[in-house]
Amino acid sequence: MSKKIGSQTYKLNNNVVIIGNAATVGSKEGAGPLKKYFKYIESDDLMGETSFEKAERKMMELTIERALKSCGLTEKKLDLLIGGDLLNQLVTINYSARDLSVPFLGIYGACSTMSESLAIGSMLLDGGYGDYIACVTGSHFSTAERQYRNPLEFGNQRQTYSQWTVTGMGCSILSNQGNGPHITKVTMGKVTDWGVKDIANMGAAMAPAAMSTLTAFFKDTKTRPEDYDLIISGDLGKLGSDILKDLMQKEKYPLGQNYVDCGHMIYSNEQKAFQGGSGAGCSASVFNSYIITKIKEGVFKKVLFMATGALMNTTLNQQGESIPAIAHLVMVER
Amino acid sequence: MSKKIGSQTYKLNNNVVIIGNAATVGSKEGAGPLKKYFKYIESDDLMGETSFEKAERKMMELTIERALKSCGLTEKKLDLLIGGDLLNQLVTINYSARDLSVPFLGIYGACSTMSESLAIGSMLLDGGYGDYIACVTGSHFSTAERQYRNPLEFGNQRQTYSQWTVTGMGCSILSNQGNGPHITKVTMGKVTDWGVKDIANMGAAMAPAAMSTLTAFFKDTKTRPEDYDLIISGDLGKLGSDILKDLMQKEKYPLGQNYVDCGHMIYSNEQKAFQGGSGAGCSASVFNSYIITKIKEGVFKKVLFMATGALMNTTLNQQGESIPAIAHLVMVER
Repeated sequence: MSKKIGSQTYKLNNNVVIIGNAATVGSKEGAGPLKKYFKYIESDDLMGETSFEKAERKMMELTIERALKSCGLTEKKLDLLIGGDLLNQLVTINYSARDLSVPFLGIYGACSTMSESLAIGSMLLDGGYGDYIACVTGSHFSTAERQYRNPLEFGNQRQTYSQWTVTGMGCSILSNQGNGPHITKVTMGKVTDWGVKDIANMGAAMAPAAMSTLTAFFKDTKTRPEDYDLIISGDLGKLGSDILKDLMQKEKYPLGQNYVDCGHMIYSNEQKAFQGGSGAGCSASVFNSYIITKIKEGVFKKVLFMATGALMNTTLNQQGESIPAIAHLVMVER
Repeated sequence: MSKKIGSQTYKLNNNVVIIGNAATVGSKEGAGPLKKYFKYIESDDLMGETSFEKAERKMMELTIERALKSCGLTEKKLDLLIGGDLLNQLVTINYSARDLSVPFLGIYGACSTMSESLAIGSMLLDGGYGDYIACVTGSHFSTAERQYRNPLEFGNQRQTYSQWTVTGMGCSILSNQGNGPHITKVTMGKVTDWGVKDIANMGAAMAPAAMSTLTAFFKDTKTRPEDYDLIISGDLGKLGSDILKDLMQKEKYPLGQNYVDCGHMIYSNEQKAFQGGSGAGCSASVFNSYIITKIKEGVFKKVLFMATGALMNTTLNQQGESIPAIAHLVMVER
């Protein structure tokens, strides 16, 4: 009965298809290297609203609507909405779910939320729990910055090893029928903490968690990095993905040219985002644009998508605690 | 293939058994009407730690350990830990999960987290995803009060319609084999918001969500309140559960003597908790003590356990938003 392979990985027996998807991003992301993959680029950071929190919510609601539209569904067909965001108490998705009026499960995995929602959604569909499930997450630079770091008005200098929170949203519609990329395996991560305490250095805090999940997946499935067309982490950024490469080398699973990081890809050097993008919207928007497009085009046939999240809050950081992190992985096939 | 009944309810086809459980509470809860059901009462609010946040985490870790012990398991046997808490970014469970080192899914449903975790955990087990899953949540008066309302040192007067955040934790261990109460049906709630803006009046904010989920369950299963031995809501408190009774009357599903509320039960009038208990720890500790004990004793054979959660945060409340709420339901049978 159990679908478990090895220690942390599960094999989906039934069809789990990504039948629809949408990504919405802000103007900075829309001016970066991935701009041709972003169908929806919003020029107004405030989305015509009176607060950044309301803007973030509007962006999420629009993205769910756009994902539903991409596969010709209305929200009435949805059995379930799964997702979260970076704001305290997940208010972006809570208020979006209120306006959608569909059964809802709120989850929190920080920047790992996209793969966490895809993991839960695909296991529930595979188990016979519904026909259509929407998975969504995202972030907004201006809400995250003032909640996690400093008020925007403070105008602080950024550390060279810091990342830039992506203003962006991604939504995938999963179904047990239809056409599109398939989710075939799921690895749920363990919380990993190697003692990093600097909240500007998210890449270093999250790399060990990414290593833990990726190594578990290779061991569980008895495969190696070279068996996949694309291995893509969430938002380790340049520094974090370099650390992951070092760690995987030590684990005897060296990552080659097929490994990239969403955070590393989303901004160019000229955009002054230092180590690259971060935030739940980073992997969510890259997955629901570039990755799905390339799978559909046949460029990638077997993809490991692993979003990574840092699980601290400001209170515990100020109490001197280190930063725990997690990474969840889904395998997506053409 | 689909296990859906009606619009929001799912029937579990396989064995999903609550094989172990534990509840830990603070001294105020341990002095209340349910004291004889609480096996673990902690006299020190700080649990010997240097901050309330660390105390909350220690209480959660101990409760997971106690639940595992109650069924003779070690954490190594766990396929998954599911849960959340009320602190920003779920730091109580994130740090607990770090120390346990098992695959982990963080969820957030505010005070509905106990039934949300039981719902996800039982669907995953039923679908063949693992053999042992731990579901946990809880809250601490002193961390919640300073995060959501006022610093303790402020010494504010409490409104007569307010509730008292329970210092308590509850953990259930689910398995696809063994003895214990069974989870047989699950109803996932929709976010409901009737416009309440007063963050002291959680009962009024959450009652419409409870009505929505309970009515959906009765319609989906073609049953009525009198078909169950116990219908128990999470933490509506006295006022909120009176509102729910009114609303259910209007929906033509009047609730009788078999309906009670965890928040209403946990404190006596003399304990000055006004409308009763609230917080994720309220329903979690009552479910994992009183309810499971009474099911095992045969007093209750068919129970509807529905935890309720208010999904706002302080920022959006200060921006003038109303309070969205949700309720998830699990049916537990002897």
